[in-house]
Amino acid sequence: MTATASNRRILFARWPSGLPVLEDFKTVVEPLPQPGAGQVLLKTLYLSLDPYMRGRMIDAPSYVPPMALGDTMCGQVVAKVVQSNDADFAPGDLALANTGWQEYGIAPAGELIKLDPAMPRPSYALGVLGMPGFTAYSALLDIGKPQPGETVVVTAATGAVGSVAGQIAKLKGCHAVGIAGGPEKCRYAVETLGYAACVDHRDPAFPALLGAACPQGIDVYFESVAGAVLEAALPLLNLHARIPLIGFSAYYNLTSLPVGVNQVPALLRQILVNRITLTGFIFFDHFANRQADFIRDMSGWVGGGKIRYREDVLTGLERAPQGLIGMLRGDNFGKLIVKVADE
Amino acid sequence: MTATASNRRILFARWPSGLPVLEDFKTVVEPLPQPGAGQVLLKTLYLSLDPYMRGRMIDAPSYVPPMALGDTMCGQVVAKVVQSNDADFAPGDLALANTGWQEYGIAPAGELIKLDPAMPRPSYALGVLGMPGFTAYSALLDIGKPQPGETVVVTAATGAVGSVAGQIAKLKGCHAVGIAGGPEKCRYAVETLGYAACVDHRDPAFPALLGAACPQGIDVYFESVAGAVLEAALPLLNLHARIPLIGFSAYYNLTSLPVGVNQVPALLRQILVNRITLTGFIFFDHFANRQADFIRDMSGWVGGGKIRYREDVLTGLERAPQGLIGMLRGDNFGKLIVKVADE
Repeated sequence: MTATASNRRILFARWPSGLPVLEDFKTVVEPLPQPGAGQVLLKTLYLSLDPYMRGRMIDAPSYVPPMALGDTMCGQVVAKVVQSNDADFAPGDLALANTGWQEYGIAPAGELIKLDPAMPRPSYALGVLGMPGFTAYSALLDIGKPQPGETVVVTAATGAVGSVAGQIAKLKGCHAVGIAGGPEKCRYAVETLGYAACVDHRDPAFPALLGAACPQGIDVYFESVAGAVLEAALPLLNLHARIPLIGFSAYYNLTSLPVGVNQVPALLRQILVNRITLTGFIFFDHFANRQADFIRDMSGWVGGGKIRYREDVLTGLERAPQGLIGMLRGDNFGKLIVKVADE
Repeated sequence: MTATASNRRILFARWPSGLPVLEDFKTVVEPLPQPGAGQVLLKTLYLSLDPYMRGRMIDAPSYVPPMALGDTMCGQVVAKVVQSNDADFAPGDLALANTGWQEYGIAPAGELIKLDPAMPRPSYALGVLGMPGFTAYSALLDIGKPQPGETVVVTAATGAVGSVAGQIAKLKGCHAVGIAGGPEKCRYAVETLGYAACVDHRDPAFPALLGAACPQGIDVYFESVAGAVLEAALPLLNLHARIPLIGFSAYYNLTSLPVGVNQVPALLRQILVNRITLTGFIFFDHFANRQADFIRDMSGWVGGGKIRYREDVLTGLERAPQGLIGMLRGDNFGKLIVKVADE
């Protein structure tokens, strides 16, 4: 580490209108920051790209405040400690941090989580053994409450969260049906992830195909997409169905509410007639209560080969903007990770 | 009772398009029916008119099948036993029955509920001490789970269900805010029912007035209206708010989904961001578990004057069609009852 080392950061430069474009981001190169008292200098190894980032680029209140223009793009990373002014961290340690889209970051030691050395790969802490895996685990089990023999439908079935939710549903003895975009993802969902069926939402016959894949109706509808996918699932929902709502990617790029048919009456009618429960889920409400169960169960399932997990790795920080844009279009195949530096 | 006595019935004659009209009903006069073995001949004293009846006049699956054209209009009644072929019932007994819109009805004794002689008035078995009261009690307490100090907003605040839900919310130590149509109902809600405030949804400033009445936001939104009322409540919902959904009268007369702005993205966004739970409620799912609690609590509250209850009584079976139509427009003021015969 020399005094001339530099740090490349990617900033949030403009509020996107619809799908973000490259001009909504800006790259700057600056001198390496210096850690203060109790702080740690981190070298980013892996950056996680996740759908929630689009929500932080909207100038409206949400469950966390939006970013400000000029901020470093937000994101969770796995990083290596380069320099530490805290007794709990030493150079070479790996840690989870929220230092975002940059090659180096500074963080107070108290905001870091040291990585479990038993982690199969460090990047798994950003996926199956991290926030997306926890979301799948807790939203499915605690909100969805799947019972053996029930039908569980998982949207974005091969994504970071959905792929885990579908496999847990199968482990719990359910008829797991995926919804994904394109035949390649659907094949992977059935052949590798073990879904009983996976339906392509781009197929013009999608609603009928979904119905055929769910001959007993839907008991748990694991929702991260909404839009036309929800409209197709709605008539199939069973008495006392549960809907964990973890996202609605079909709406992330809306600039205003869509004009057309107001589907609220159809949604409420189905919820009333079948006495359905729809519940919003954000992982941090449940983490304190369920973290220990999650680590125990998920480590066992991943280690024992019962949960398969796929990463879609882009190499180089400069690919992050295009990676996020592509993910919002459904281009990624598996958990999207940017490899920023070698371990 | 002579052999020449006749029975007047009102039939379901035509599927309504939008708000029902008088031509959707047909009155017939027929000879008095004769009870068979195990059956009872009943003289209708009070007929209950309820919003769910409009749902039974829609040719689509719901939580109970729709009526067929030519059926006697459905409805719960308080009736007096005229003739009984069952040892459990004697002439003069009062019973709850589902014999619908007619002066006399026949029912198997096993389908009747003998009226508790302690009932303050027999017609209360159709309201505060019957299905509407139970819906208010169980949907509010079991789905809404109001905590002392929380804000509970009740739609149709002076109606058969809402008036009871609002008063229970107040008994539980909540800030109870009503929504009703017109200044007279709003005044009654505050002065007689004890709501902290009641907002007129017909006022052009309704959304702002609702916000002003709920300075701490909304923790429980007791929903039986939906439509524009829901749209005004949505931005006020607090973290972890609960929405018991018992009806959506704003949509009952829709002939197709409304065209305009699709509000589903706004609804789902609010449910996710604030981790809200929306649950459909039909009384019969909960009756077995909660009936004893309900009878004990509600009898005590009504007997002790802690729950006030208002009936809107029409006299004469022939007024039932106009009564139902008016109720769907919000004309009734209190629980709508048709007095069919003297006790």
